[in-house]
Amino acid sequence: MAKEITSRSENYSQWYNDIVKKADLAENSAVRGCMIIKPYGYAIWERMRDQLDKMFKETGHVNAYFPLFVPKSLFEAEEKNAEGFAKECAIVTHYRLKNDPSGHGKLMVDPEAKLEEELVVRPTSEAIIWHTYKDWIQSYRDLPILINQWANVVRWEMRTRPFLRTAEFLWQEGHTAHASKDEAIEEAKKMHDVYATFAEEYMAMPVIKGFKSENERFAGADDTFTIEALMQDGKALQAGTSHFLGQNFARAFDVKFSNAQNEYEYVWATSWGVSTRLVGGLIMTHSDDDGLVLPPKLAPIHVIIVPIPKPDDVILQKAQEIADALRALGISVQIDKDENKRPGFKFAEYEMKGIPVRIGIGLRDLQNNVVEVARRDTKEKMSVPLDGIDVFIQNLLEDIQQNLFNRALKYRDEHITRVDTYEEFKMVLEEKGGFLSCHWDGTAETEELIKQETKATIRCIPLRQEMEEGQCIYSGKPSKGRVIFAKAY
Amino acid sequence: MAKEITSRSENYSQWYNDIVKKADLAENSAVRGCMIIKPYGYAIWERMRDQLDKMFKETGHVNAYFPLFVPKSLFEAEEKNAEGFAKECAIVTHYRLKNDPSGHGKLMVDPEAKLEEELVVRPTSEAIIWHTYKDWIQSYRDLPILINQWANVVRWEMRTRPFLRTAEFLWQEGHTAHASKDEAIEEAKKMHDVYATFAEEYMAMPVIKGFKSENERFAGADDTFTIEALMQDGKALQAGTSHFLGQNFARAFDVKFSNAQNEYEYVWATSWGVSTRLVGGLIMTHSDDDGLVLPPKLAPIHVIIVPIPKPDDVILQKAQEIADALRALGISVQIDKDENKRPGFKFAEYEMKGIPVRIGIGLRDLQNNVVEVARRDTKEKMSVPLDGIDVFIQNLLEDIQQNLFNRALKYRDEHITRVDTYEEFKMVLEEKGGFLSCHWDGTAETEELIKQETKATIRCIPLRQEMEEGQCIYSGKPSKGRVIFAKAY
Repeated sequence: MAKEITSRSENYSQWYNDIVKKADLAENSAVRGCMIIKPYGYAIWERMRDQLDKMFKETGHVNAYFPLFVPKSLFEAEEKNAEGFAKECAIVTHYRLKNDPSGHGKLMVDPEAKLEEELVVRPTSEAIIWHTYKDWIQSYRDLPILINQWANVVRWEMRTRPFLRTAEFLWQEGHTAHASKDEAIEEAKKMHDVYATFAEEYMAMPVIKGFKSENERFAGADDTFTIEALMQDGKALQAGTSHFLGQNFARAFDVKFSNAQNEYEYVWATSWGVSTRLVGGLIMTHSDDDGLVLPPKLAPIHVIIVPIPKPDDVILQKAQEIADALRALGISVQIDKDENKRPGFKFAEYEMKGIPVRIGIGLRDLQNNVVEVARRDTKEKMSVPLDGIDVFIQNLLEDIQQNLFNRALKYRDEHITRVDTYEEFKMVLEEKGGFLSCHWDGTAETEELIKQETKATIRCIPLRQEMEEGQCIYSGKPSKGRVIFAKAY
Repeated sequence: MAKEITSRSENYSQWYNDIVKKADLAENSAVRGCMIIKPYGYAIWERMRDQLDKMFKETGHVNAYFPLFVPKSLFEAEEKNAEGFAKECAIVTHYRLKNDPSGHGKLMVDPEAKLEEELVVRPTSEAIIWHTYKDWIQSYRDLPILINQWANVVRWEMRTRPFLRTAEFLWQEGHTAHASKDEAIEEAKKMHDVYATFAEEYMAMPVIKGFKSENERFAGADDTFTIEALMQDGKALQAGTSHFLGQNFARAFDVKFSNAQNEYEYVWATSWGVSTRLVGGLIMTHSDDDGLVLPPKLAPIHVIIVPIPKPDDVILQKAQEIADALRALGISVQIDKDENKRPGFKFAEYEMKGIPVRIGIGLRDLQNNVVEVARRDTKEKMSVPLDGIDVFIQNLLEDIQQNLFNRALKYRDEHITRVDTYEEFKMVLEEKGGFLSCHWDGTAETEELIKQETKATIRCIPLRQEMEEGQCIYSGKPSKGRVIFAKAY
């Protein structure tokens, strides 16, 4: 039962894979690096998507859909962006199969159906979208354009892991166009805030908000804002990024607008995205050695009701009453009516799936007008009066949401370590992990050398940077503030 | 203004393209045959998707996500299915671009990054899904599997039209697995019913329910159930199909289960799908020479409020009050605060966009405590008291929904013509169009000859078939019931 998964201390990476498998979230497919998102995993993503979509619409964005394919000539137009993705993209070269004469029922690519121009399966959609925006934008009156797209993208990654890094993944990508630099920067920051709010309030996952060093920026961006979370193995997860793209794509695709003075200017741009990677972050932030732990705001099922020792009419009737009362409060409930499995087996199964609250109903309890309530986060069990059980559970779900955030925040804060020498840096990185707050001389060379020697990268320059004079831990050169290093997923 | 679009009588096909363009629904992209779904068009699709998703969940289905790519060896496993799609599929052969030595900033496919096995961009997902189901199904206890997927698919069509036929399109595809033939047939029929209900109750688009002749079946199906709608040019639109797949995919992918008697059997299957093509059907069913007409249940904006002749404080305050009252009833409202455009221009624009109800507010009207309400479907204008305006509009929207369905039903019923000779068949087909109800000898040969000579195909054998003895209009051979022929999109 619960013993089926590897413990975190034994093998963190295997623990993660075990949870993905045993909680029925996803599995590998017949296509290298592509996963199958199973119904329970997809239900979590649906809840993330619906909440984010609501937040995007509340901030004035609308959805649209652009093609899966990018003609090579458009793909290569913005050089930095093209360079960043050229080495890992799937390329369509033909549009037909034909019978293979070498085997009955076999097919082969028809060499006569070669495309004149190859198509890149989108790794991101700036190119196809900015090619389109050229037709949509003439005057400042056409601006801003505030569009988001929910889509699949493909990046031919060599090392993949379910949710965290897959060749195909699901995401949203916002692509906005603005008449001024300030407005575009404001937009990029606004969506950065939306991501941070979503991560903390819905995923119960604390994040550090900051911007990327030049080395770590999105290919084609002038600035990349990021939210960085900390996983339980002390490694960082980049959970969402919002890019100020300057006029780079406008220049590449010749997108100009006439301003109020009738002068032509290049359009200012942002793009921003989060992906199914968030599901990986959610798993790793809260789960334990008994399985998945989910924050109530994103859990597909909030409450499972288990008859003890097994279903009978009296118990099921009471279970139904409780379920009805909870559902009236917007709480998602399931009743386990299976007669063949024992309660202990069921308990372990629901713990594995991370269902926030379990209600056990036994006949003796009913005689006393109580039920047993177990919370998944602390594994605490309580005997709770039936009277008012609905409001009790509602409050308990809020408490679990808050407790998960507090617990993750405590862990995260305990794993931000100020270090002042390179020796200390390496020691803490190896022995404790987590975020290292230290001085850096601001050069790409130093960053690259530290990365080569330790595998740690600058996760971000925090927006709330500690401004203090100091010396770079590596070069000893002067620095004006601390940045955050970590090993990362 | 309204004169910007071609009339239906002048050029139906151009009329459709004009509406797609002028109502800002979609446009062609830089990728051959792929469209860009613009925000207003996508908002209509979102409403369709949300309602369908609700109906799928209410009938016990869950969502999941399978890979975009199908390895060639899986693609070819079910031979009929493979044959049906092999000639029109996009094929990924490489996974990397590299710098093209012939030009600065140019990229080329890296010949060293050739895939060992080509990947087909899914035209439909039976192959990848049934390959997966093999691992998921051992016993009858694992059945049924009731999964749906929202995804993009690619079919390399030669002639494309926005929404109606595009190389890439968005759709949902249900893929279910069952322990018995009866259960699978029941599932296929259930989803056929869901599609018909959706088409008639939400799209206000009447459909004929039936099943396909062998020629017109989905490649790999034993039976295809279809809903067929009639467009205003007298051509049919296949709007949704639900397939009983028999054990064809289970055989191709060797998916067996042990039944209650511990005997192994092949699993029974269905698949069913509707796509963004429905948006095309919606446009063509209701729209007129002034632009788009939308049924309220799928309209992104139900009511537009236009100050006359232009916004001022008193009018805007009243507009806000009306909007608040309508929103409280779940009605979607926008207030036009633009000060530069004239009311006549605005009216034409909102007619073009098919907004079901327009409320005009002028100062003189306000003195009399009335506003002007115009309905898009009949273009009727009414002076309506402010008192109770919210409930009036709510009822009006219901009335518009019903009226659109009735109007479309009347047109459709007037265009079902019983014909008994081939001469009559050809004459009605040319002069009147629509559905032709006639006798057919049941052979694929006759169907094919009629298609070659007239371009008409059997749209369906209606579930409510008129059972009567007759003679095939083409061969004169005996027939036991009438089938529905039409030219189709």
